[in-house]
Amino acid sequence: MSSSTIELTKSPGAWAPVVHGSLDADQARAFAPMFKALGDPVRLRLLSMIASAGGGEVCVCDLTGSFKLTGPTISHHLKVLREAGLVDSDRRGTWVYYRLVPAALVLLAGLLDVSGAAAA
Amino acid sequence: MSSSTIELTKSPGAWAPVVHGSLDADQARAFAPMFKALGDPVRLRLLSMIASAGGGEVCVCDLTGSFKLTGPTISHHLKVLREAGLVDSDRRGTWVYYRLVPAALVLLAGLLDVSGAAAA
Repeated sequence: MSSSTIELTKSPGAWAPVVHGSLDADQARAFAPMFKALGDPVRLRLLSMIASAGGGEVCVCDLTGSFKLTGPTISHHLKVLREAGLVDSDRRGTWVYYRLVPAALVLLAGLLDVSGAAAA
Repeated sequence: MSSSTIELTKSPGAWAPVVHGSLDADQARAFAPMFKALGDPVRLRLLSMIASAGGGEVCVCDLTGSFKLTGPTISHHLKVLREAGLVDSDRRGTWVYYRLVPAALVLLAGLLDVSGAAAA
């Protein structure tokens, strides 16, 4: 478990949206790596493929064909997503299977919720 | 207006959450810079300070005191947030004033919405 995923032990409701208050330095250091992991087009596509997979998980063997990238490069991007706490994985036999960590996305979406702001 | 903010001309509802379908390469290239801009602790704190400001905007002169960073470094981070379409700014007299672009946060939060997924 990466340090950032420690935050997931709090319920999403425990984190107020950014429109309701400033993040302190520790909170910002915890959340920034999760956003940074999403800040790459390949990783964003990989996350969306994993998140929208029927059956809730995807074999890495079904992810690589959508990109003009080597297997090791795809594996590196998947490792970044996993270390940020956005996806989880299991090795079964030859292949590694990836699945979304929904609580992580709930957390980030909650931070970006502007519905309570007058400007929204 | 940066290229990424072109996406805001579509209503948030036009973008399905990632749990409902994979992003294509063009969509991922448009959204990744917005997440990347949030992927730094200083920028995440700056965004939260701007987003939660009473009155809807913040003078850059009120942002710098919270960081052990030089003015030019803070200005660089604010420029990254602005170029990603997350904040907007106006120069009035000596100072630059920053305000949130709520539609950008609505867009990103919508992408991360897992409420429609079975796993959520």
